Order: sequence, then structure tokens, then C-alpha cells
Amino acid sequence: MLDKSSLPETLPRAIGLLGGGVIGGGWAARFLLNGVDVRLYDPASNAVEYVNKMLAKARRAYQRMTLVPLPPEGMLTVVDSVAEAVHGVDLVQESAPERLELKQKLLASASRVAEPGLPICSSTSGFRPSMLQAEMDHPESFLVAHPFQPVYLLPLVELCAGQHTASEMLDRAAAIYRSIGMHPLVVRKEVDGFLANRLGEALNRESLWLVHDDAATLQEIDDAIRYSWALRRAAIGSYRAADGGKGIRQAIEQWAFKWPWSKLTDKPDINAAFLDKAAAQADALVKADPLDISAEQKRDDLLVALLQALRSQGYGPGETLARWERGLLVRAPQPTQGAGPLRTLREIPSNWVDGNGHAAESTYLQLCSEATGTVTRHIDIDGEYRSKSGTYFTVETHLTHLGELHAGDRVQVLTQVLGADEKRLHLFHSIAREGDERPAATGEQMLIHVDPISRRSAPVREHVRERLLELARLHAHLPRPERVGAGIRLPPSKGTGG
Amino acid sequence: MLDKSSLPETLPRAIGLLGGGVIGGGWAARFLLNGVDVRLYDPASNAVEYVNKMLAKARRAYQRMTLVPLPPEGMLTVVDSVAEAVHGVDLVQESAPERLELKQKLLASASRVAEPGLPICSSTSGFRPSMLQAEMDHPESFLVAHPFQPVYLLPLVELCAGQHTASEMLDRAAAIYRSIGMHPLVVRKEVDGFLANRLGEALNRESLWLVHDDAATLQEIDDAIRYSWALRRAAIGSYRAADGGKGIRQAIEQWAFKWPWSKLTDKPDINAAFLDKAAAQADALVKADPLDISAEQKRDDLLVALLQALRSQGYGPGETLARWERGLLVRAPQPTQGAGPLRTLREIPSNWVDGNGHAAESTYLQLCSEATGTVTRHIDIDGEYRSKSGTYFTVETHLTHLGELHAGDRVQVLTQVLGADEKRLHLFHSIAREGDERPAATGEQMLIHVDPISRRSAPVREHVRERLLELARLHAHLPRPERVGAGIRLPPSKGTGG
Repeated sequence: MLDKSSLPETLPRAIGLLGGGVIGGGWAARFLLNGVDVRLYDPASNAVEYVNKMLAKARRAYQRMTLVPLPPEGMLTVVDSVAEAVHGVDLVQESAPERLELKQKLLASASRVAEPGLPICSSTSGFRPSMLQAEMDHPESFLVAHPFQPVYLLPLVELCAGQHTASEMLDRAAAIYRSIGMHPLVVRKEVDGFLANRLGEALNRESLWLVHDDAATLQEIDDAIRYSWALRRAAIGSYRAADGGKGIRQAIEQWAFKWPWSKLTDKPDINAAFLDKAAAQADALVKADPLDISAEQKRDDLLVALLQALRSQGYGPGETLARWERGLLVRAPQPTQGAGPLRTLREIPSNWVDGNGHAAESTYLQLCSEATGTVTRHIDIDGEYRSKSGTYFTVETHLTHLGELHAGDRVQVLTQVLGADEKRLHLFHSIAREGDERPAATGEQMLIHVDPISRRSAPVREHVRERLLELARLHAHLPRPERVGAGIRLPPSKGTGG
Repeated sequence: MLDKSSLPETLPRAIGLLGGGVIGGGWAARFLLNGVDVRLYDPASNAVEYVNKMLAKARRAYQRMTLVPLPPEGMLTVVDSVAEAVHGVDLVQESAPERLELKQKLLASASRVAEPGLPICSSTSGFRPSMLQAEMDHPESFLVAHPFQPVYLLPLVELCAGQHTASEMLDRAAAIYRSIGMHPLVVRKEVDGFLANRLGEALNRESLWLVHDDAATLQEIDDAIRYSWALRRAAIGSYRAADGGKGIRQAIEQWAFKWPWSKLTDKPDINAAFLDKAAAQADALVKADPLDISAEQKRDDLLVALLQALRSQGYGPGETLARWERGLLVRAPQPTQGAGPLRTLREIPSNWVDGNGHAAESTYLQLCSEATGTVTRHIDIDGEYRSKSGTYFTVETHLTHLGELHAGDRVQVLTQVLGADEKRLHLFHSIAREGDERPAATGEQMLIHVDPISRRSAPVREHVRERLLELARLHAHLPRPERVGAGIRLPPSKGTGG
């Protein structure tokens, strides 16, 4: 096992790439966006073009993924020979097509011209490292480092040593891959296909049998997996979720090869020694990855986070969730009277204007405050209630500016109750000039009912609660604003307001 | 194939459950939280207790998952016989242990006492429906409806008809499952294990071989999958990502059984007819699921959303992402001078106080505005620049209240530049009483540089840009505030502020 702290993360200055196809191009993008110079050797005439296209895709993804300022991009240099690609770099990554002889030849020529001790890695999806290093001058510098598509996003890289590989090479390569945001996993034995592809291939094999037997179409297979266990596997894994040796022993005894459909192929013998081994591994897993909540709760939290992420993309199980929410709203009890959002009217006074000649930004929060006042009055919170029973304090506000307001504008704030319970009140304010369809700003707020003396959260009193829940039920019929629950996003390249 | 629009979603009033274990309890939770009454028959003495525990877990998950108001919970009634569980309900769901005779007996006795036409469904993970319906009085009302753990969260339910099942039963059951937020998938043939388990079992079989051969531990297997293709499978699926018949034909020709590790077991013959079938299915998939961006872009957007979701949970690939971001910050160029956040000082005037006796909520946004002014002055935006070259407009603000401020308080706002480019400026303000460690509020803001005449976004001028990027680089060394990028969350049950 790799000791994760054995070497600090060391960002290389430059790396050499042999091959710039779908895998090599992905490596190029990942290294360049991490500020590492790339020397690319690829005999194909359109290789640079292809790598630049890949880089553009990766830039877009990184811009969405992180707000941390990225370093200045590395420089891409296209070279004419293996020797030039290997010159002056900290790591060589070979990603040629999956033909054994081609790879062996390329790696051998890289080894001939490389500085001694320079790690030379192959992206091969399946060839054993001992086969690949057979013809190299310095096989001790060679290892397999197998990434996954898209290389610039998926974190796994499988490291596998051949019989001649020096073990410190694995540590050095792992430190480099970690420095560019990857998760190196050392494969402990030379096995064809390593781990992830071998497991994926078992799945593909079964999928093709199902297609062959007309038991399912490709779409049905995709759906069967992504609406069920792929989410759980991606979130917490199967064995971590089992929560220790006892659970895994039970699970294996219960399901392994007990079902008719698992009798189709060769299978290992599940004897006492095997169960002991698996149980010990599961206990080690729990020890290596302690949780501050139960594994089951962690599983649920991860699944909820993934479902919400997919909802934000309107896709797959996320769309199923969104459809269910729409159904809840449609089925909410029908209002006995027409009930739109609550309305607050205001004229913008001239002293609310800032140096840019429009309403100062605090204006918008002031308008939200006043609109919240309209809600609390509506549910019968008055001065007496406030002094004796409590009031609402805002705990969070999310303002979005879509236009400008000016002194003298007559403004209408429409307020919708998005949700409420005995302590919480979730509001959405839409602020527009009277007569304008399009709001100048929106404000989402979460409020908490607090005790007037202790100033700590406390349940709302019964009669106010009834008024509030009635209002929430009526407002459940209103269309739900799009931006509810979103965080600050990277805005597109046009914008006004505030 | 099921026509998805064949029946409207119909929320049942009540359902009968036979068995309340890990699957039955999950069904109970899902139905109850959707407002459906549940009649539970389970001879185990602790069944109610178990179901109530499961319900508590599901409540917690739903509270995190959605802000849409849920209907009043259904009522759980524990009954003493199959006949009582089946009486007056709209659907029966059997989730007894996976023993064929036990299930057959239970289903037969349900069928004897059920109203004609009442759908009776089995949660079996693997028995073929024709075997299960063999002893029923009304086998036409029976189907398999196989869910996945945790039943209250995972959306898939596989529907499978036996040889005597009436086809309208599938439609009726599908409409019911859709109404409680699930994704019904009709399995077109009776196959042992249906689809998802059969595919999962292929994966488990290969996993156990790897453990057996000491090629990997359980943890390595979990990691190999969840850091690589499980994310992609959960996000977009394998075949949708291939983007049509051409892509899938190429992919199958390229990988199917070409690798040494896939020569271990029986495999279907990949001939021209097979490739035609697969290609046609892949084209149908694309047609059924049109995207407004390329499949590759959609894949990336989904992966980014999932990685960010996992980052919010500090887990697995999300933790890898967070670690990478910390690395970027550590490696940012070292400051030549000590550079903390920019500081703005203010005393709260008495006319900023509201009816609750503390600073009005718009105070906090006013303080953010003033602190933004400190930033713009620091980067040399003055009156002349504003009138000729442009200024920053706020497009979004996220305020979080953690305490209270009062008239006369001396307040310090510390402002950190989180990110900047030629148009965008991302700030984080921390507002605290002088001397207090803990802020009373924080404000995250996104601003856009706009042209003074067109009021549309425009790049910042060179000399200001240099000052700004220098500041951003210096601030990259400051610890990153926790709540950056978050949306409004459901707060815990204590809170003050605003």
C-alpha cells in the first residue's frame, strides 16, 4: 500500500506526452490547467488542434468546478521526436493506441534518451507493465499510470509496477498525480486490465449478454444502473456502506452466488477462510475511513447531495426528483380562495441613491425587510405578540440583481412563502417597478422564530402557526422561482444591477 | 415498453405491506412521507419499532432533499393478518424474506382475500414472477416491483410481468410508483435477477475473484469504482455518453472481449447482426433523450455537479477536489508583503435600529457596500475612472447572520478577494464587532465590471486589472471561508441574528 504522506505533492514544471488522442489530450488539458508545461509528440498532423479542443472543454469544466484562482496555464509545445518530448521534463506519459508492439517500441525509445531516474508512465488500459517494460534500457523507471475518461475530470489513476519497476518511482509518480488533483491507487499485483476496467468489463459483458438475449436495450441497461446502484456506488461504495466485517460477512453469505443468475459463470469458493479475509478487509476499511455519523446516514447524505446535483442539471434521477416535487405541488390541497403572493408597495426615496446614480444596494434588502413585515402582519404577529411570544429573525439572504431602480420609482414586492414549519420560514421576494414584468431583483430569505427574551429559536405560537401554514399551503400552488436554493454562481458575461 | 403518459400519476390513499424489514420498512417510509396510509402485516414483534426507525431516517433525508412542503404524513396501522393488510387499499406490496415457498404462500393468501383487480406486487430481488404467481387465485393482478435500498431515496423500481399478469396492472402500478417519486422501468422479459441486480452481480462476481486472487482488497475495489466510472455511470450512463449508433458500434468493436481479462468467461458472439442491433438501440436512445448541448458537454456538466456535491459532503472524489483546491492556494505565488484582508471600520448609528432593538437587516448590506468601496479604492477606481471607464455592479449577494449588532457598536468588516478576472469580482466580507473573534454576519458577493454608458458588462482597464489581480493573488493565501458558494440551507434548530 502506498503511504499517502510518503512524499509531499510536487507540481512538476514540465512533462512529456507521447500521444495526444482522447487520453493524451485529456492529460495535456489537466497538466496545462495546473500550470505545468507540456511537450507533446504525436505524429498525427491534427494533434495540436485536437489537444486545443480538449483544452477548451476542460477550461469550461474547470471554470464551473472551482472558484479558486487557477495558476497561469502551462505552455504547450509540439515537438518532432520522442527525444525532444523527453528532454528537460519531470515525467513522461505515454498514451499511444493500445497496440502492444507500438507501445513497447515507443517506451523503449523514450528510455534510451531519458535522463536516468525520470519516471516513464504508460496510460495503457490493460497491458501488464512487465510486458511493456521488456525492451526498455531503464525498466526500473517505468510504471503503468492508467487514467479514466475524461482525464481532466475523473480523479482515479491506477498505478501498477512491473517486475523491474523501482518502488520509489511509484511514490514519485503518485506525488505528481496528487499535485494535479488526482487520486492515485496502487494496484498490488500485475493483473490484466488492472482493477477498474476489469470490474467495468464484467459489467459490460453482462450488458452485452442482456442485449444479445433481447432481455434489455442499451437504454434500459443505462437506466437500470444509473437510477439504482451506480448512485450508491459513486457515493459511498458497496463495502464501506456495509459498515464493517460483520456486515460484509452477512452480505456475502446472503447473496454471493445464491441466485439463479449467478450460476452462469465460474465463481470462487466462498469458504470460511475467504469470509475471514473479506471481513478483515471490511473492518480495515472502516478503520481507515472513520465517519462522524453512521455509515447509513452518510450514505443518505451523499445520495441526497448527488440527487440534488442531478436536479440542478435537470437530468436522470434529478429530473425524477424534480417531477416528484412538481407532483407534490399539484396535489397540495386546492385553495378555497384565490391566493397570490403578498404585495408590498414602496416609492424609492431620493436619499436611497448611490454614487452610480441608482438605488443603493442596501435598498433591496430594505425592500425585502418591508415585505417580510407584510408577511408577519398577515399571520397576526403584532407588537404584543413580538414582546411576549417572539418574532422572526433573518438567518440568511440571497439577493440577485437583474436590473436597476432609481429615485422616484414606484416598486412592488411580491412575496411567496416557499416553506414553513414550527420554527422556520422560507420566503421569496420578487422586486419590480410597477408595471414591469421582469423583476429588478429577487431575494430569497430564511428566517427563524426566536423567543423575545432568550433570543434563541423557539416554536411559533399555535394561532400564528395556523395562519402561517394556511398561507404556505395556498402559496404551494404558485410557480416555484427558478433560483431557489442556488449558491452564488459564476455569472455569464453580461450583467447589470446593484 | 411502457407509455409514460398512458396513465396520470395517481397517489393511492392507502397501501398494504406484507413484511416490514429493510425493504418493507423503506416502502413504508416512502409511502407515509408521501401522505399515503400504510397497513402493515409483519409477524415479527419488533416490526413497528423497526419501521419507525426507518421512517425517522427517511424524514431526515427528505428534509435535506426538498424545500417543497410535504403533505401531512400517512397513518401507519399495524394489523394482525394478511386479510386486514389487504382490506381497503389501492396496492399490496410484499417484501418478505427471499424464500420462494414463503413468498408463494403469502402471495396466494393475499390473492384469496383481495378485491378483484387490486394490484399485488412483490419486492423480490430475483424470483421470476411466473414462479411467484403460480399459486395465486388471481395471478392476473400480480407483478414484480423490485426497489433498491434505501427504498425511500433511490428512484428505480423494476416492473416485471409473469405469464399470467394482465398488462394494465403494470400501467396502474407504474402510475402509483411515479406518484411517490420513483422511476418505474419495465423489464421486457422474465429474467432471473431482472436487470440492475444481474448487472450488479456481475460486478460482485468479478470483485470476489479479485479478493480471492489477492489482487485487491474491498477498499481498493470500492475506490477503483467510485473514483472512476461509477461517477460517469451515475451521471450519464455508458451508452448515452457514446452519443449514438456510430459511437457504440466503434466502442463495441474496439473493446468487446478484445482484452486478455475478458477471455475468462463465456461471451456472446459480436457479429454484424449484433452490432446492427446495438447501433439501432443507441440511436433510439439519443432520439428519446435529446440534449441541448453535446453529450460530451452534458457528461462534463453532470460530473462537475456530482463532484461539487461530493465536495459539499467532504467525501471521496469530493475530498480529492477540495484537497486539490487547497494545493492550488498553497502553491499560489508567495506574497512579497504581508497581506491580510482589507479592513473597513464603522460605528452603527442609532437610526439603523429596527423594531427588534437591534441593527436592521439592511445594515449588513450597507456594511458590505462600504467594504466593497474599500476594495475599489484600493485598486485605484476613483471618480474619474467611474465616469469614463466603468464601475462594479453587484449581481448577487449571500448574507448569513450569526449574531446581532446594536446602535453604537464599533464594527470591523474584513474583506477577502476570492476570485477575479477581467469582468468578475468575487468578494467575501466578514462583519464583526471590534474585538470579537466571531463574526455577526458574513456576506459573499459577485460583482461585474460595467461600462458607464451602456451599463453592460465590460472588461476592467489594464492598470486597475493589474492591481486587482495582485490583490487576488495575495488573498489566495488566506484561509477560504467555509460557506462560499453554498445556497440557502435549512438551518438547524437554533439561530439568532438579522
